[in-house]
Amino acid sequence: MIDKSKLAEANAAHADNLQHDYDALGAHLARRGVDIADVLEKACEFAVAVPSWGAGTGGTRFARFPGKSEPRNIFEKLEDCAVINDLVCITGEVSPHFPWDVVEDMGEVKAAADSHGLTFGPVNSNTFQDQVGQAHSYKYGSLSHSDKSTRDQAVAHNIDCIEWGKAIGSDVLTVWVGDGSNFAGQSNFTRQFERYLTSMEDIYKALPGDWRMFIEHKMFEPSFYSTVIQDWGSNILAAQHLGDRCFSLVDLGHHAPNVNIEMIVARLIQFEKLAGFHFNDSKYGDDDLDSGSLHPFQQFLIFNELIDAEHRGAKNFRPEYMLDQSHNMTDPIESLATSAVAVQRSYVQALLINRTELEGYQDDNDAMMASQCLKRAYQTDVTPILSMARFKAGGAIDPVGFYRSLNYRDTLETKRPASANPSSGIV
Amino acid sequence: MIDKSKLAEANAAHADNLQHDYDALGAHLARRGVDIADVLEKACEFAVAVPSWGAGTGGTRFARFPGKSEPRNIFEKLEDCAVINDLVCITGEVSPHFPWDVVEDMGEVKAAADSHGLTFGPVNSNTFQDQVGQAHSYKYGSLSHSDKSTRDQAVAHNIDCIEWGKAIGSDVLTVWVGDGSNFAGQSNFTRQFERYLTSMEDIYKALPGDWRMFIEHKMFEPSFYSTVIQDWGSNILAAQHLGDRCFSLVDLGHHAPNVNIEMIVARLIQFEKLAGFHFNDSKYGDDDLDSGSLHPFQQFLIFNELIDAEHRGAKNFRPEYMLDQSHNMTDPIESLATSAVAVQRSYVQALLINRTELEGYQDDNDAMMASQCLKRAYQTDVTPILSMARFKAGGAIDPVGFYRSLNYRDTLETKRPASANPSSGIV
Amino acid sequence: MIDKSKLAEANAAHADNLQHDYDALGAHLARRGVDIADVLEKACEFAVAVPSWGAGTGGTRFARFPGKSEPRNIFEKLEDCAVINDLVCITGEVSPHFPWDVVEDMGEVKAAADSHGLTFGPVNSNTFQDQVGQAHSYKYGSLSHSDKSTRDQAVAHNIDCIEWGKAIGSDVLTVWVGDGSNFAGQSNFTRQFERYLTSMEDIYKALPGDWRMFIEHKMFEPSFYSTVIQDWGSNILAAQHLGDRCFSLVDLGHHAPNVNIEMIVARLIQFEKLAGFHFNDSKYGDDDLDSGSLHPFQQFLIFNELIDAEHRGAKNFRPEYMLDQSHNMTDPIESLATSAVAVQRSYVQALLINRTELEGYQDDNDAMMASQCLKRAYQTDVTPILSMARFKAGGAIDPVGFYRSLNYRDTLETKRPASANPSSGIV
Amino acid sequence: MIDKSKLAEANAAHADNLQHDYDALGAHLARRGVDIADVLEKACEFAVAVPSWGAGTGGTRFARFPGKSEPRNIFEKLEDCAVINDLVCITGEVSPHFPWDVVEDMGEVKAAADSHGLTFGPVNSNTFQDQVGQAHSYKYGSLSHSDKSTRDQAVAHNIDCIEWGKAIGSDVLTVWVGDGSNFAGQSNFTRQFERYLTSMEDIYKALPGDWRMFIEHKMFEPSFYSTVIQDWGSNILAAQHLGDRCFSLVDLGHHAPNVNIEMIVARLIQFEKLAGFHFNDSKYGDDDLDSGSLHPFQQFLIFNELIDAEHRGAKNFRPEYMLDQSHNMTDPIESLATSAVAVQRSYVQALLINRTELEGYQDDNDAMMASQCLKRAYQTDVTPILSMARFKAGGAIDPVGFYRSLNYRDTLETKRPASANPSSGIV
Repeated sequence: MIDKSKLAEANAAHADNLQHDYDALGAHLARRGVDIADVLEKACEFAVAVPSWGAGTGGTRFARFPGKSEPRNIFEKLEDCAVINDLVCITGEVSPHFPWDVVEDMGEVKAAADSHGLTFGPVNSNTFQDQVGQAHSYKYGSLSHSDKSTRDQAVAHNIDCIEWGKAIGSDVLTVWVGDGSNFAGQSNFTRQFERYLTSMEDIYKALPGDWRMFIEHKMFEPSFYSTVIQDWGSNILAAQHLGDRCFSLVDLGHHAPNVNIEMIVARLIQFEKLAGFHFNDSKYGDDDLDSGSLHPFQQFLIFNELIDAEHRGAKNFRPEYMLDQSHNMTDPIESLATSAVAVQRSYVQALLINRTELEGYQDDNDAMMASQCLKRAYQTDVTPILSMARFKAGGAIDPVGFYRSLNYRDTLETKRPASANPSSGIV
Repeated sequence: MIDKSKLAEANAAHADNLQHDYDALGAHLARRGVDIADVLEKACEFAVAVPSWGAGTGGTRFARFPGKSEPRNIFEKLEDCAVINDLVCITGEVSPHFPWDVVEDMGEVKAAADSHGLTFGPVNSNTFQDQVGQAHSYKYGSLSHSDKSTRDQAVAHNIDCIEWGKAIGSDVLTVWVGDGSNFAGQSNFTRQFERYLTSMEDIYKALPGDWRMFIEHKMFEPSFYSTVIQDWGSNILAAQHLGDRCFSLVDLGHHAPNVNIEMIVARLIQFEKLAGFHFNDSKYGDDDLDSGSLHPFQQFLIFNELIDAEHRGAKNFRPEYMLDQSHNMTDPIESLATSAVAVQRSYVQALLINRTELEGYQDDNDAMMASQCLKRAYQTDVTPILSMARFKAGGAIDPVGFYRSLNYRDTLETKRPASANPSSGIV
Repeated sequence: MIDKSKLAEANAAHADNLQHDYDALGAHLARRGVDIADVLEKACEFAVAVPSWGAGTGGTRFARFPGKSEPRNIFEKLEDCAVINDLVCITGEVSPHFPWDVVEDMGEVKAAADSHGLTFGPVNSNTFQDQVGQAHSYKYGSLSHSDKSTRDQAVAHNIDCIEWGKAIGSDVLTVWVGDGSNFAGQSNFTRQFERYLTSMEDIYKALPGDWRMFIEHKMFEPSFYSTVIQDWGSNILAAQHLGDRCFSLVDLGHHAPNVNIEMIVARLIQFEKLAGFHFNDSKYGDDDLDSGSLHPFQQFLIFNELIDAEHRGAKNFRPEYMLDQSHNMTDPIESLATSAVAVQRSYVQALLINRTELEGYQDDNDAMMASQCLKRAYQTDVTPILSMARFKAGGAIDPVGFYRSLNYRDTLETKRPASANPSSGIV
Repeated sequence: MIDKSKLAEANAAHADNLQHDYDALGAHLARRGVDIADVLEKACEFAVAVPSWGAGTGGTRFARFPGKSEPRNIFEKLEDCAVINDLVCITGEVSPHFPWDVVEDMGEVKAAADSHGLTFGPVNSNTFQDQVGQAHSYKYGSLSHSDKSTRDQAVAHNIDCIEWGKAIGSDVLTVWVGDGSNFAGQSNFTRQFERYLTSMEDIYKALPGDWRMFIEHKMFEPSFYSTVIQDWGSNILAAQHLGDRCFSLVDLGHHAPNVNIEMIVARLIQFEKLAGFHFNDSKYGDDDLDSGSLHPFQQFLIFNELIDAEHRGAKNFRPEYMLDQSHNMTDPIESLATSAVAVQRSYVQALLINRTELEGYQDDNDAMMASQCLKRAYQTDVTPILSMARFKAGGAIDPVGFYRSLNYRDTLETKRPASANPSSGIV
């Protein structure tokens, strides 16, 4: 999607400064016993998937304020995802949402992705909305609904998702349901969870042998009194019940206030059930803000756990990374590009932790030095490594600056006209 | 809207039991030195307004699952509000939302309300959504927007609201804005608040001499990093700045976790700035659940403050009560009727507190007996008083049971056809 | 401890009114299809243990304000517990804490309890404080400490607790540790949890065949960044790891803000791991307030789950009930007596739920009627049943009033002199 | 306290590397249009006070695990504070707590401080604990107590604090009270607050003309249902009521979960009532963890507000900075030294924000670039500036490393023997 010569020109304006900063950081890290080239190599290998739905402007129940030239279907979303990956070179994978991204011939979707150099990550089912013509409503639940026909319909949709996913080369099904209740007494917690597990068994049985199933928990919203998979406890018990290829996914915005999320990550790894992440940031609830925008240290601590797990050779450890954000006020391309880099930043910072020293401090209960050991890694400005990784991979040293110079949205204005309804809310 | 003979028949089936329960409670209260007739009289005088928008089915950003025969405009909403008031006899006031409830001739709205025996409470402005054809978008704020033209447009809308309100007999303007930010740095907190205050000054100036202005605070949503009027602190400072006829409104779902809301109510009363309430219940955020459905003791404690203020002769104390809920899973008529009664229940329970005894325990630091004194009032089952109040006023002893016997929604199915789009979400 | 004739005299003053209220409630319940005698019988069978340490005045890290005539040792604590049970007749079991309640000859403790008609419930170990002369400090942890000698010392203490418990007729060991960290990086979450599990295995092996082991989770305090058993997820995984006789205990004040605790209770029951409860109430953290004093509806919803489990014949369901509160501002005898009754109140209210109707509403997704069904039970003033249960069992109709008439603390003032240090804090 | 030649030797080992890092950062900042020398100068001028009580080991209500050679009185605390200031050169001010730090002749305290090159900051009163021989207990409150004699005693203590403060050269009185309640109904919120205000008026009247009074709010603990000054709303209303020399102090750990603290800081500045800070970090409640240890970005955002206020020439803006932490697991000298630097780090990072650019992005609603503008400053590793500031001022390049080389605690072991009671808790 991007003119390589324009990009080269733009990068040229930054290359000297980048080299200076990179060399200075390299010299500094060498004094700390770290070879910057090794870190750069790992930074280049890092990847995080983008959600197809993230390419559109998000909103709240109060309103949605659409952006200019928004993508109207999976093909246009893939165009935008290709731009993102051209800019940052770490988002080659796209995670689709069904039925939103379903077309008659899913082969065309695969072909479009191929043409952009993109592949598909986990597929996501949707039984939290009713579709036109749907036989049974999900108003009172889907996989855990008290009515068997409704549950069967939801199970069938998930199996459809697997089929669509096969057609585009995915091998993971992620299941999130909003099933729950708004009133004490509305649902019997136990019977509801039993029905959920039975439905999930049916889906699990339909899973191809090389596929995995991810369960996503969430504390609340759209249900406001109880939710079937409300936390990592219910999540891991369900994953254990379902089988070896079922894992528990962590979305950073889906927990109770004050919860230590990095510890949950550690527990899921220890019990061999970590699926991976939906990265985003949040202050109040499932705010779906840009990753690392408000709690960069927390994101770093999560990567500290991930690298520690690799270091210890944790079993069944193969986490998938994905962004899952709602871009209400920014251009989704800009937000996804910078968020991918923000996640990569946490990863690279965590690589700088001296694990041998840290382990020593931990064994000696030297809380001060253990803390300082993490902080030394976190405080390091790894920007030159991130920029150099993009530069080497053919991306943009300054992704947002370069993207803005393209006037991308302006050029698409006639091709992607605005919808008649400028904004809608539910309240 | 309701056939009085059917109602009489339905009530007749409950009247004997009600009388038994009422007499037994009367005898019990007499032993506690309370005359049940006095309490019944106050229960009959109690009133709480219903929100016009509450008559429709609510939803979340994920989906809205419409109910059968939903009202499509203010006239149909008034029909439903009339049913609610016929059932419970304490909701004679309706609070409208503009521009949702605007029609060409607002006199017709007033006439419709008159015909139902309804009046209008506070009018609510809406600058959190864009309307078709609007010159300036509220995507980045309204009354506090960095652009003066946008602020002026928002001010003008609020002044329009006053005009519409005058046409229907209201005398209060309630202002809630979602203005805020999603990123640290996006807005300068101070300059944004200064702009908000300047805009509000312009609206305040346009307020007729017998009108009041209510400011509503909210911690978050639709903004997820900061909100201009984020808590009662900013709210009361703004209300003090604006003038004597500006007051601070409390919505029960708009606070941080764990906050002592009844204490905020007490503070607003003490500083003569309590506007009133948007009643609802919540567990996580602005869940807009049915009033008293999850935290009935908290609702009781709020009424303890209100009755204490009356008892002490608090100055400038004239609170407005209003429901503000989102009915995602229930028939709004049933929820509004039962919620109005739930609020009335808290009021009546709080009437039973022996204030002389309580004051004595407080002065003696007898925490145990002070607590028991409140609990004795709270634990009293005042259902017979509430039922009797409805019965005496011509309402239904069993509002939900009687309403269901009417098959109200079925009878309106052709008159109020479903919209083509069965459900929508924003995500 | 209590003069029965004085009690009879005090009760006589209330007996007539009680009978009136009881009869009126009986008539009302009969109209709802409930036989009050059945409910009374179950109320009489209800029991909840009191914690030996609860008999002393609690405090915060800022200060402790001692009460008059506080018990100074387990024998005096048992005297006070006997008074409580004489008043309310549902607290015949005492739960001791070691080494606080250890004496040379534990047989004397057993004999003292026998003489008061008391028995012993779960015993609690203490590895969150250092004792004079202790070889290894718990400053940096106990069962999960990085140093094996410290872990062994903590394991040995727990095995000692079992021995002490055997001497006094207990058959449950409750293990709570404050182990955790105050700095990110201080502890390796995984290695720390592995060490914890290994230590717990050693204790579990020492458990007599008819004993059970309870694990108690807590979000924070005394550790303020991470805690080893931080939530029910880690708790149940540990309990599953350890074996069939290991269960997960729920303390109501040990969860993150907004968490749905009744749902956690349901999950623990479903997975056959519910140990029981430490009842108390809280608004902010582990506030250890009097049970039901702030969130009576939540306590009711927990009993809704417990009775539902009985109703469904849940397997391995044998929960232990215990109060665990800190009485900083009240006489512990008054607080424990009223709190026991507050818990009994929730139980009796939950007995009134019509389970057949509720199940029907749940199957029909009739959220409104399901909610009303619970509320009808909750709103019933069951005070006459609770009072009658005490009266029948030989307790006090008005426990606090009668207790105050005894001037119990005054009579003990010379026997139990105040400590030289009137108050201490840690800060 | 510190051997300057040893320090010079220790610094020599780091000086070359520091110069390299500093030069590289200087070159980088120059490319961003920033002169590192200007930033260094401001870093050198930065100061934050340490609390005298912070020199001792803290604890929780469960236990306190004393450290080796803890200071036993104000003179030994000053010795330790002198060490801290010798290490980091930004903590020349000590904030005392009375009566903890009272001695017969306060002139001796002043002289001791002078000899260490230390001065005194705000003095803190203590009416949350009872002292031996005190006439009236603070069990049920102090400045807001229902009993006038108790209130008078608390007022008198605060006036004593002013006198003690005058003797040591302070000019600020900080008032924090734990007054509140543990039960709904225990206190009448309004009457309690009125009594508080009246007591504070009496103290304010006794304030010398050049003194200021700071009020500190706190959500909860030691009171667990309500607290008189529970949030910034009550705080600023009290400060406005009391007069021009009364201001509102922000302790970072004293707010409800999820609250936007930097916004509160902005509001207090705007209404000319910001007193300053008690810096610390927290995850759950008033955890009193080391400043910046868990939420470094939040601390940076607070300094963003402070520098913005300076930039805009905010009126009556003269904030005092102070650490207020509880060191339960670390050597207090190490924690206070590193925490002071952590606060200084946030200040220096915030200095790097390009305010002209930021303002432009804010006016344009360019949320993405506004966010990136802050992040660019935050991500900059300013360690070389902080180290160079210490080096230039005569402090330690590596404060913890050098301090450890001194074996300070070992050398004091005989001079400062451990107390007989190794540990105590309240529970």
